[in-house]
Amino acid sequence: MTGYDSDKDAYLARLKRVEGQVRGLHRMVDADAYCIDVLTQVSAATKALQAVALVLLTDHLGHCVAEAAGRGGAEGDAKVKEAADAIARLVRS
Amino acid sequence: MTGYDSDKDAYLARLKRVEGQVRGLHRMVDADAYCIDVLTQVSAATKALQAVALVLLTDHLGHCVAEAAGRGGAEGDAKVKEAADAIARLVRS
Amino acid sequence: MTGYDSDKDAYLARLKRVEGQVRGLHRMVDADAYCIDVLTQVSAATKALQAVALVLLTDHLGHCVAEAAGRGGAEGDAKVKEAADAIARLVRS
Amino acid sequence: MTGYDSDKDAYLARLKRVEGQVRGLHRMVDADAYCIDVLTQVSAATKALQAVALVLLTDHLGHCVAEAAGRGGAEGDAKVKEAADAIARLVRS
Repeated sequence: MTGYDSDKDAYLARLKRVEGQVRGLHRMVDADAYCIDVLTQVSAATKALQAVALVLLTDHLGHCVAEAAGRGGAEGDAKVKEAADAIARLVRS
Repeated sequence: MTGYDSDKDAYLARLKRVEGQVRGLHRMVDADAYCIDVLTQVSAATKALQAVALVLLTDHLGHCVAEAAGRGGAEGDAKVKEAADAIARLVRS
Repeated sequence: MTGYDSDKDAYLARLKRVEGQVRGLHRMVDADAYCIDVLTQVSAATKALQAVALVLLTDHLGHCVAEAAGRGGAEGDAKVKEAADAIARLVRS
Repeated sequence: MTGYDSDKDAYLARLKRVEGQVRGLHRMVDADAYCIDVLTQVSAATKALQAVALVLLTDHLGHCVAEAAGRGGAEGDAKVKEAADAIARLVRS
């Protein structure tokens, strides 16, 4: 079971939108759009991706991590460590 | 004339790859992939987008901003301000 | 009880170092250091602060959040939500 | 000549404030403040540092980079490349 089953459709719809944003970036560059306008859209797509990541992470903390932590022991510690590493990658990306 | 004309094909190829990464994310969620693996791929796609933005921005500074700054006056100042605002959006996204 | 009691000295030492880095930035600007060198040090101080944040967050997830999640119910949910909001602030800062 | 001479006092005042924020973080940890409150202050200090960096960078683009670009040639290219590398470090920090 994964943490995002309940909201799967919402995740899929968000990712479709980001895919559309990136396709739009391709069209802009192909049509020689002004650099700064392209950069504005890159920032928007980046924010949209980060927003998906934050919702995924919240679900993951509330499901997988909370359950493993509830059972305690090494498995709980491992799940916390794994989530912390994923957060570090997000903060640095 | 835009600053990325010379490397247009390289930009288009990079954006195609990012679009493929986002489509891959959609497939992962659809196939109930493990949250952390999805997050790792979100970080990779975010980094790829930021990398495109940095190359675009470097070209823009070296072309549009440098030319306007070379001519000096209000137009040069406006181009520097515009680029600085785009950089601020990238740093915060 | 807070999550960082055990490593309190390590946190205090890290924060002392960041304070020293920021004081060094003040000295650099006061001595008219080259902008790019100042920016390089600003990036280093920012990374050091983010690193402290990531260690604090990992400890917090492994202590407060894990314990509250283990007890379950509304308190567990509230702790997860609170941690997720803190992560969102870090990602955006 | 550096790009921030004119606003040197403003930079020094901003850096003093950031130093005060980091000293405040030290006090909070020393007084066993709640992790999430410490994290909120870390995010605030990080944002303040990034804001200083963005002003420095804007000044640098408007002075050193614009002047070198106006003279053109290899020196102009080198200044643009140097600024782009500094931007990349900021985006990734």
